[in-house]
Amino acid sequence: MQLGMIGLGRMGANIVRRLLRDGHECIVYNRTPDKVKQLESEGAQGTTSLDDFVNQLTKPRVAWVMVPAGDATEQIVIELAQKMEPGDIIIDGGNSYYKDDVRRAKILQDMGINYVDVGTSGGVWGLERGYCLMIGGGKGSVEHLDPIFKTIAPGRGDIPRTPGREKLSSTAEAGYLHCGSSGAGHFVKMVHNGIEYALMQAYAEGFDIFRNANSQELSEAYRYDLNVADIAEVWRRGSVVGSWLLDLAAMALAENPTLSDYTGFVQDSGEGRWTIMAAIESAVPADVLSASLYTRFRSRQEHTFAEKVLSAMRQKFGGHIEHKGR
Amino acid sequence: MQLGMIGLGRMGANIVRRLLRDGHECIVYNRTPDKVKQLESEGAQGTTSLDDFVNQLTKPRVAWVMVPAGDATEQIVIELAQKMEPGDIIIDGGNSYYKDDVRRAKILQDMGINYVDVGTSGGVWGLERGYCLMIGGGKGSVEHLDPIFKTIAPGRGDIPRTPGREKLSSTAEAGYLHCGSSGAGHFVKMVHNGIEYALMQAYAEGFDIFRNANSQELSEAYRYDLNVADIAEVWRRGSVVGSWLLDLAAMALAENPTLSDYTGFVQDSGEGRWTIMAAIESAVPADVLSASLYTRFRSRQEHTFAEKVLSAMRQKFGGHIEHKGR
Amino acid sequence: MQLGMIGLGRMGANIVRRLLRDGHECIVYNRTPDKVKQLESEGAQGTTSLDDFVNQLTKPRVAWVMVPAGDATEQIVIELAQKMEPGDIIIDGGNSYYKDDVRRAKILQDMGINYVDVGTSGGVWGLERGYCLMIGGGKGSVEHLDPIFKTIAPGRGDIPRTPGREKLSSTAEAGYLHCGSSGAGHFVKMVHNGIEYALMQAYAEGFDIFRNANSQELSEAYRYDLNVADIAEVWRRGSVVGSWLLDLAAMALAENPTLSDYTGFVQDSGEGRWTIMAAIESAVPADVLSASLYTRFRSRQEHTFAEKVLSAMRQKFGGHIEHKGR
Amino acid sequence: MQLGMIGLGRMGANIVRRLLRDGHECIVYNRTPDKVKQLESEGAQGTTSLDDFVNQLTKPRVAWVMVPAGDATEQIVIELAQKMEPGDIIIDGGNSYYKDDVRRAKILQDMGINYVDVGTSGGVWGLERGYCLMIGGGKGSVEHLDPIFKTIAPGRGDIPRTPGREKLSSTAEAGYLHCGSSGAGHFVKMVHNGIEYALMQAYAEGFDIFRNANSQELSEAYRYDLNVADIAEVWRRGSVVGSWLLDLAAMALAENPTLSDYTGFVQDSGEGRWTIMAAIESAVPADVLSASLYTRFRSRQEHTFAEKVLSAMRQKFGGHIEHKGR
Repeated sequence: MQLGMIGLGRMGANIVRRLLRDGHECIVYNRTPDKVKQLESEGAQGTTSLDDFVNQLTKPRVAWVMVPAGDATEQIVIELAQKMEPGDIIIDGGNSYYKDDVRRAKILQDMGINYVDVGTSGGVWGLERGYCLMIGGGKGSVEHLDPIFKTIAPGRGDIPRTPGREKLSSTAEAGYLHCGSSGAGHFVKMVHNGIEYALMQAYAEGFDIFRNANSQELSEAYRYDLNVADIAEVWRRGSVVGSWLLDLAAMALAENPTLSDYTGFVQDSGEGRWTIMAAIESAVPADVLSASLYTRFRSRQEHTFAEKVLSAMRQKFGGHIEHKGR
Repeated sequence: MQLGMIGLGRMGANIVRRLLRDGHECIVYNRTPDKVKQLESEGAQGTTSLDDFVNQLTKPRVAWVMVPAGDATEQIVIELAQKMEPGDIIIDGGNSYYKDDVRRAKILQDMGINYVDVGTSGGVWGLERGYCLMIGGGKGSVEHLDPIFKTIAPGRGDIPRTPGREKLSSTAEAGYLHCGSSGAGHFVKMVHNGIEYALMQAYAEGFDIFRNANSQELSEAYRYDLNVADIAEVWRRGSVVGSWLLDLAAMALAENPTLSDYTGFVQDSGEGRWTIMAAIESAVPADVLSASLYTRFRSRQEHTFAEKVLSAMRQKFGGHIEHKGR
Repeated sequence: MQLGMIGLGRMGANIVRRLLRDGHECIVYNRTPDKVKQLESEGAQGTTSLDDFVNQLTKPRVAWVMVPAGDATEQIVIELAQKMEPGDIIIDGGNSYYKDDVRRAKILQDMGINYVDVGTSGGVWGLERGYCLMIGGGKGSVEHLDPIFKTIAPGRGDIPRTPGREKLSSTAEAGYLHCGSSGAGHFVKMVHNGIEYALMQAYAEGFDIFRNANSQELSEAYRYDLNVADIAEVWRRGSVVGSWLLDLAAMALAENPTLSDYTGFVQDSGEGRWTIMAAIESAVPADVLSASLYTRFRSRQEHTFAEKVLSAMRQKFGGHIEHKGR
Repeated sequence: MQLGMIGLGRMGANIVRRLLRDGHECIVYNRTPDKVKQLESEGAQGTTSLDDFVNQLTKPRVAWVMVPAGDATEQIVIELAQKMEPGDIIIDGGNSYYKDDVRRAKILQDMGINYVDVGTSGGVWGLERGYCLMIGGGKGSVEHLDPIFKTIAPGRGDIPRTPGREKLSSTAEAGYLHCGSSGAGHFVKMVHNGIEYALMQAYAEGFDIFRNANSQELSEAYRYDLNVADIAEVWRRGSVVGSWLLDLAAMALAENPTLSDYTGFVQDSGEGRWTIMAAIESAVPADVLSASLYTRFRSRQEHTFAEKVLSAMRQKFGGHIEHKGR
């Protein structure tokens, strides 16, 4: 099947590679010609002109937009829609806010164009492992795109089957899922990332306790000099905390158990924040998801104003002058 | 190699089974004869007398105690130590508090007896998958027990090797690890469980948002009727939130996506609590670990006194009478 | 000075009463005639027709809207603006979302009408104590309204002066403050309520610990049967945790230390939620503000789906069947 | 009445001053003679010898120990007890752990000596305002000490009476309270401080949101340049968030609204930590109390190991290199 890809960053390029390997035809577009040439050398048909891109696609056209969420995606989707024809399909495979999907799908619907939102998880590993796809949009479009999704997704692989799954017909086992109407794909991906933050924070706090298990604040009787790399490794086998994120932590810790190469400044993307907003809008207590986001906010500052307010109150109350130290 | 097992609950019995299968010799003791008979029929040598148990073991004796943490363990360890001889080894394989290990190890050391603490993770799956073992105690005893640990642990299996591991010599890859001096095994297991609570809570909050994505509190434009069972399943392949706990959630949700069979009363065991205490003692911020514990405390009450205090203040301030409803 | 009041709920009516007492002239409007009659008997000029209301006001008209935030406020502000003339002033004294203020101020500005947003705190106590006013909007309008604000606010009273205040010229000491441009009043009131939730939660958790200080889970050596009413009272004098909310808690606990008349279902209004959203938008860690909101969400449910997910995972992992109990 | 004071730090010295002013007789002891001389010049009888101190007290002796909690208190209490006689009273007025009180009270009881634990709140303001006293111990001793407590405490003052209080007979209104048996005083004071941390954190987060209300991350339409000093001040009158801690914040902000003189390194003392431990021991959810403690832990570090673990996972998953910046 044919697919047009707009945006040849790592994710976009690797999705094209998975499709090419599996015999699909790919038209690729990028503003910079280098990336286009690279993928042409791997079997794609390339262009740096959006008009050419649209012309080279056979109807009904299928264009996958893989550019940064926000203004960049908004602009390219609208521009593209204006060049396309009723019945064509635009896929937003980035990390868009689901409310933007709802709004955009409506605009495109009025133009007769189908909008499909796809949350894509897989990171730098997706090329080999396949990408987990969370999909929102109209049933017709999603079914039409099934061959594309099947190729991009990991497939069932050798992961043990969930008991009872044999009775349930769903593409979920193959690593892709039509979650619901417009925005549902990015909604599910959003919460996925919110969960991801909290899973990461869970391990992070645990390892932090280990790192401090030899601290002066503890009684001598139970100070331990623990090997965090080995602990991460041993948990990969048989323990209940095994996970892919633990595998990644084990990799990093095996390289350097002090992690001294990492700054500890931790970015967050929109999804983590939107997850909390969705929780609040639906009155769902989201304690660990929120706390995980806040530790990231905190990690990027030297001191918060909040901390100075605490210091100031302490000084006014008890005459405490705060000194540096732990 | 020979091992004596005290306590034939599910964990104790299954550890014996793994040992028998791998050709080790097991002497088993339990107060109730039924469980002893069952394991005798599977190849173990059984007794309901602690004296017999000690006599049947060849020196240096190795006795694994697998009874509930706290008083039960304390009592049996001390009683056993009094019947044993210098050079013998007592293993506490339960969920003891690591400070109790430090204390007990000292008592036994004065008697010439070696004390080894082992945190054991594996649940109902351990018989087939093997148990992840986190070990504390003296180097000599731990090395002496290596054949036992190797059999009980999962081994390397077909789990992909962590890059760089080939250069590190450690039993961690085989699923067991000597973590440090007395108490270190249970200390690592304790934090393991603290992390487990938080991983669980991360998924739980995410799925709660999904369940409420169709709520009246949300704008109609983005209400979604999501299939949580399929979402759990699709994440098992290629996504960054894949884990064993997710596999278990997928199982439960595949059986019944509303989970209506579960009460929602969630117990906690000592480890989760002790983890927070250790964090506090060493001044480590443990936001998500704590929050995960507190949701469990809250889950077991109809209303907290705290909530009544809130209601009361609201009434006194604004004349608000609180009604039931969401 | 003359003021028109729309909405004669408790807050609106009491503000009118404070104004009348201080010699201001009040035109009052309400859809239901009862409330209008009541205030007429206290010296106000009443009407149940919006046209009459507008006609009775002298130019430049000043109309204070005190109806529920959201649709009700939106509708009355727009309707009123259409009946008014350039130079008139509309005050939104309710609990509006500050982003709605920004939007509405713009719409009204295009009509030549001034929009002032006022966050009002005081609850059922405001009639006697005065209302704390947080004000947003154009400087000219706010200055014009100064006599009104001065009367509604508590004034300096006998509260000890903050050292250094004598050098700062600000109405803050009198209990009202022009915080900034449109929306700033409600923004400050919003965070005020966010803080309020957390202050309440702080006391609530503390008293909960007291209530459980006699629980079976504690060692007998330090079980205490504490008198929470007396504790709240003693803290009112000399302690660092003294506050008005503590005064209110002391009142409720003096009536009934078990608070058995309160359900423990705790509502939340928009401000608490919007505070978290503002924190997230500006990347400010808001751990206790968020946690305070979540305990309210949780208080209104019997069990969350999250808790059932925890139960389900526990069952699948360890075969734990959850029973009711603490 | 006569009282001996051991430890003439600010709190100890000021308590003595309040007693002297009210006509009580004070014997004071300190290791360094300077502080002793100062109080002698104010009317106390001083000594730098513990034996002299004991000899100068009339039986039954009353000695108030006001030295740092922990080893210092332990040592002086035991030493003192050895020099005293049955029927004498030792008061621990510091910030001791209530479990230490329970233990110490038992030791002293065996010697016939009465032990009274007093949690004392008041900071640098106590000399003028009086100290809020939370008292634990035997009824006889506490009643015997009533004249002392009455003088040290603030008394009813001009604080409005809680409705219904006239029917309750309790010293709580005078600012001191016999909370229960040994340890109860420090238990109540401990939770008092736990609450204090959370109240402080509530304001701190709110002001942090204000400080960032002009940040680049917000839409231009609602960026506000807020005057935090004036906001703190306006809330002191009529608002629901009024409190003594707010008064202190208003003082500090009036001096310098950027609080640039404060480092933001925030210490914590034992009480905040022990409060969490007590909450956990009695299974009380203590979300905001814990979060408040953790922000203090975090404030004292440049980066936690936890944050580096997050950075490392992000790098391994998505190739993200973390840069400094917000």
